[in-house]
Amino acid sequence: PPGRKVLIVYAHQEPKSLNGSLKRVAVEELSKQGCSVTVSDLYAMQFEPRATRNDIVGCLHNSEEFNYGVETWEAYKRGGLSSDLIEEQKKVQEADLLIFQFPLYWFSMPAIMKGWMDRVLVQGFAYEFPNCYDSGLLKNKLALFSFTTGGSREMYAKGGISGDIRYLLWPMQHGIMHFCGVKVLAPHICFAPEYVSEEKRKEMLTAWAQRLKTLWKEEPINCSPEWYFK
Amino acid sequence: PPGRKVLIVYAHQEPKSLNGSLKRVAVEELSKQGCSVTVSDLYAMQFEPRATRNDIVGCLHNSEEFNYGVETWEAYKRGGLSSDLIEEQKKVQEADLLIFQFPLYWFSMPAIMKGWMDRVLVQGFAYEFPNCYDSGLLKNKLALFSFTTGGSREMYAKGGISGDIRYLLWPMQHGIMHFCGVKVLAPHICFAPEYVSEEKRKEMLTAWAQRLKTLWKEEPINCSPEWYFK
Repeated sequence: PPGRKVLIVYAHQEPKSLNGSLKRVAVEELSKQGCSVTVSDLYAMQFEPRATRNDIVGCLHNSEEFNYGVETWEAYKRGGLSSDLIEEQKKVQEADLLIFQFPLYWFSMPAIMKGWMDRVLVQGFAYEFPNCYDSGLLKNKLALFSFTTGGSREMYAKGGISGDIRYLLWPMQHGIMHFCGVKVLAPHICFAPEYVSEEKRKEMLTAWAQRLKTLWKEEPINCSPEWYFK
Repeated sequence: PPGRKVLIVYAHQEPKSLNGSLKRVAVEELSKQGCSVTVSDLYAMQFEPRATRNDIVGCLHNSEEFNYGVETWEAYKRGGLSSDLIEEQKKVQEADLLIFQFPLYWFSMPAIMKGWMDRVLVQGFAYEFPNCYDSGLLKNKLALFSFTTGGSREMYAKGGISGDIRYLLWPMQHGIMHFCGVKVLAPHICFAPEYVSEEKRKEMLTAWAQRLKTLWKEEPINCSPEWYFK
């Protein structure tokens, strides 16, 4: 609806890919609804995935023994994180909905997107013990993982060779988003687009646009072990 | 035993960290046994985690639409991968055992190590359809995930707030290593070292050294859904 803010964190090297098209479809459909949409195009930004001392501007809290978690927490509190992180945190802070758009790499997100999680979601900003899970600092936001797979729907079925696709969603949806207090919408999965016809791929884009039309009416999933493993 | 080759893929920024000590303990103990040990110290190497066109030397198979999986597969076959990848693949090829040593970041490995998986384990080298899982190309090798956590053992218990620690091992052990045909030894987990005494941390190092003494007699886990989710 008008006024809602959406951040799309997008990780694909090729604009002509299905992931590129899925991203464009989301920008178009959500903009049409009057949402304000921001895209973090990680490869185009050459986003840095490595968690290093460079993420802290100025002196370290403890330069004798570098602890990334402690240092970024301290840096966050004094406004001393590197500017690329501050910028991403601003986008997250303003967003009502985070959409992660990527091709599945090794049962997870590509490293460039994992680096976004590792570096942007620092303690103090996204959580602060004991404020995690339902009291995480990013509560009142929604997240949706939208991705393509190499393997087929059959491989990712319960009893399939790669196991239920939900098994691999646990670390991303529960371990990251739920941990930060974000409510999780059902994932959007395009199975094996490289092995289907151009027409089927077009249907995938239409289905995504269709889902987005009523997205704001969706209820979040119950992000507990039952959803994933029962 | 003498002659066995071990590759330790290590991802921590600080040599003085517990992860740094665990890595050193492994090098020492395994060398003492007569193994030949190689370490890929990812942060020290400034290992590139991003999967990009730079990983392919020379012309692309299809420069109209960049597909990372296809391009690295083709490049592998003609010896056209970037030199850092060829070097890591050589280390993997020679190794009988791969040890991954890292702090758990967001229910998974740090992005720099995920990038190692994304970029090194290319089709043609690590698997080649339909040769995956038990017929993956890296069969006859062993892997072991050794990591530290922020959360406590209680948080990662079945019924704990973060769920059974085994849930998050599925993508790494099954989705990556088993997929490539590698047999998986039981993980080695140091829970919440930042919240225990110096003495407890020393015990963690001793326990690791102790385990390594009889590591070669261990049987791999049964890497199927039952191990993770039952």
